[in-house]
Amino acid sequence: MPNAVRELQVDLGDRSYPIFIGDGLLGSMDLTPYVAGSQIMIVTNETVAPLYLEQAKACFSGKAVDSVVLPDGEEYKDWQTLNLVFDALLKKRHTRKTTLVALGGGVVGDMTGFAAASYQRGVPFIQIPTTLLSQVDSSVGGKTGINHPLGKNMIGAFHQPEVVLIDTNSLKTLPPREVSAGLAEVIKYGLIRDTEFLAWLELEMDRLIGLSPDSLVEAIYRSCACKADVVARDEREGGLRAILNLGHTFGHAIETFAGYGNWLHGEAVGTGMVMAADLSLREGMISGADLARARELVARAGLPLLPPAEMTPDHFMDLMAVDKKNIDGALRLVLLRALGDAFVTADASPENLAATLGAFCQGAPD
Amino acid sequence: MPNAVRELQVDLGDRSYPIFIGDGLLGSMDLTPYVAGSQIMIVTNETVAPLYLEQAKACFSGKAVDSVVLPDGEEYKDWQTLNLVFDALLKKRHTRKTTLVALGGGVVGDMTGFAAASYQRGVPFIQIPTTLLSQVDSSVGGKTGINHPLGKNMIGAFHQPEVVLIDTNSLKTLPPREVSAGLAEVIKYGLIRDTEFLAWLELEMDRLIGLSPDSLVEAIYRSCACKADVVARDEREGGLRAILNLGHTFGHAIETFAGYGNWLHGEAVGTGMVMAADLSLREGMISGADLARARELVARAGLPLLPPAEMTPDHFMDLMAVDKKNIDGALRLVLLRALGDAFVTADASPENLAATLGAFCQGAPD
Repeated sequence: MPNAVRELQVDLGDRSYPIFIGDGLLGSMDLTPYVAGSQIMIVTNETVAPLYLEQAKACFSGKAVDSVVLPDGEEYKDWQTLNLVFDALLKKRHTRKTTLVALGGGVVGDMTGFAAASYQRGVPFIQIPTTLLSQVDSSVGGKTGINHPLGKNMIGAFHQPEVVLIDTNSLKTLPPREVSAGLAEVIKYGLIRDTEFLAWLELEMDRLIGLSPDSLVEAIYRSCACKADVVARDEREGGLRAILNLGHTFGHAIETFAGYGNWLHGEAVGTGMVMAADLSLREGMISGADLARARELVARAGLPLLPPAEMTPDHFMDLMAVDKKNIDGALRLVLLRALGDAFVTADASPENLAATLGAFCQGAPD
Repeated sequence: MPNAVRELQVDLGDRSYPIFIGDGLLGSMDLTPYVAGSQIMIVTNETVAPLYLEQAKACFSGKAVDSVVLPDGEEYKDWQTLNLVFDALLKKRHTRKTTLVALGGGVVGDMTGFAAASYQRGVPFIQIPTTLLSQVDSSVGGKTGINHPLGKNMIGAFHQPEVVLIDTNSLKTLPPREVSAGLAEVIKYGLIRDTEFLAWLELEMDRLIGLSPDSLVEAIYRSCACKADVVARDEREGGLRAILNLGHTFGHAIETFAGYGNWLHGEAVGTGMVMAADLSLREGMISGADLARARELVARAGLPLLPPAEMTPDHFMDLMAVDKKNIDGALRLVLLRALGDAFVTADASPENLAATLGAFCQGAPD
């Protein structure tokens, strides 16, 4: 039996839903109360299926459960692969009363969510994220979608799940590099909104890296709660939600430079957050001690502190100029007014930005 | 200058929008008040572009207007063609502040609407329907989507436009067969909800066939108003909205049997409505005089009264069994409790249904 289960309600009016977080939930928790019809289509990938598909099916006993297994990898987050889901739904004659279930990481979650948003103009779906990154990021926010050859996540929808089940036990099969990448987003929530959580993370980081269930449940709960609070205030990305992108503008530049897949998203965000903190210091907003705390936590999570050695300030400037958050050509960055207080600005001084890029690109973060 | 313009407000809370109906609106009406950003992408097809693209561009003076011209035909209502829209948007660097414009018939409207629902997780769009069918049908309801090889309209979204502009002048270039097909849906609104409109149609049918602008504006206005009223009461297709499918279950069987494109959708619906009225008579709900009125109006609109000569009752039963409106295997039909009063039922007597099919399949509708 699982230990204590934490429940978090994501408050979005008539699209509100609960997130259940615990160790050993997969296979033991009955999810049928969240299924209106009789049909279930579990969407997963070839890596996750052998590990957890049977356990996931056990959450829907009494229902007609079909499954479709996709190839694993961001390079398959495209229309052709999405269409395998539609093929399976139509071949198995799933009606508009069906429920889709995403079992896997962020790619499976994004694709399944978009399939659910689009199949017969919209059917319900359930998220069972199995990576730390997807547990603390995609569980909340309703963003779904696929990539286009000319841009990531360019085609998609906002579509909220009926329920999210997070089993920390599934992290035991996750490569350590991916645990660290997930911790980058966990640290992010502390940095942007919650100094108390930041202090807690400093105490718990070693237990998190060691996959202690109690620490993981708490970290995931507080991360999801932080994101849920931000998203509830700004569901369609008008303003506040942009602070969730702390470290992402620098990070996307790193990911693109390195070629997608060579740096994990969370690794690039980890380095990007340290760069954003460095710029915040140069802008006179946080102290050197604050920057050191941020950098220390990122380092203890096993994340890189510097961009690829070959990357120059010009690479950063070119790659950041095409960021889709920019408006009318002005570079928009998320900076820290203080630890636990992020904001979006287009007014960072070009000299300070150049100094930050120069410092990190020479391999010396100070 | 256009004559009097009729305006209809489609009432959907914060997604409400106006429909403007008039003769000569295209090119003369300024639509920029409905455009939040500076970018416009007009989506049209190779038939409509030479006729109306320049006029449509004139509705957006001062904006950066791009266009993409798709191949014409239901067979192109697929992902590959939809992707031409995404390609154009990304190549021309349209941001999430862009507005899409659908200029054409139902296929262009459905695809453009789905492109707008999905591009960067949703951007606004404007409808300029140029066929009678799309003017009285797709203008209201927010249904968008594409076909899948295993089913029509299986992938899509509900997405409401910012504004709909209907220019009756664009019907002058429409083949007469398509005018008749559009009139089938116009007659439908009279049959399902509005006996006064039905009586008006009996007076005006010759002028409608003759494309009299005043008659067309009135018929389109009342059709859209009827559909808007039904949709406002049932936006996501829970119940009432199903009456909009009068004649469609028989009609879809005819379309599928004939092979899509051989019978126009409206033609099949015309015949289907007469069959539904015939069954309603056999069920003891309407009179023989009522049936004669329905049949007469369908005939005067230039629509066929009988299914293809080769079609048997068994063909109908097989094809109707897979209709997606069926629930738990029961055949659901829209019948007429009286002229102007349609309802959905799964309780039509099998004997009466067999009698209707027998009568129509032998070439004798009585």
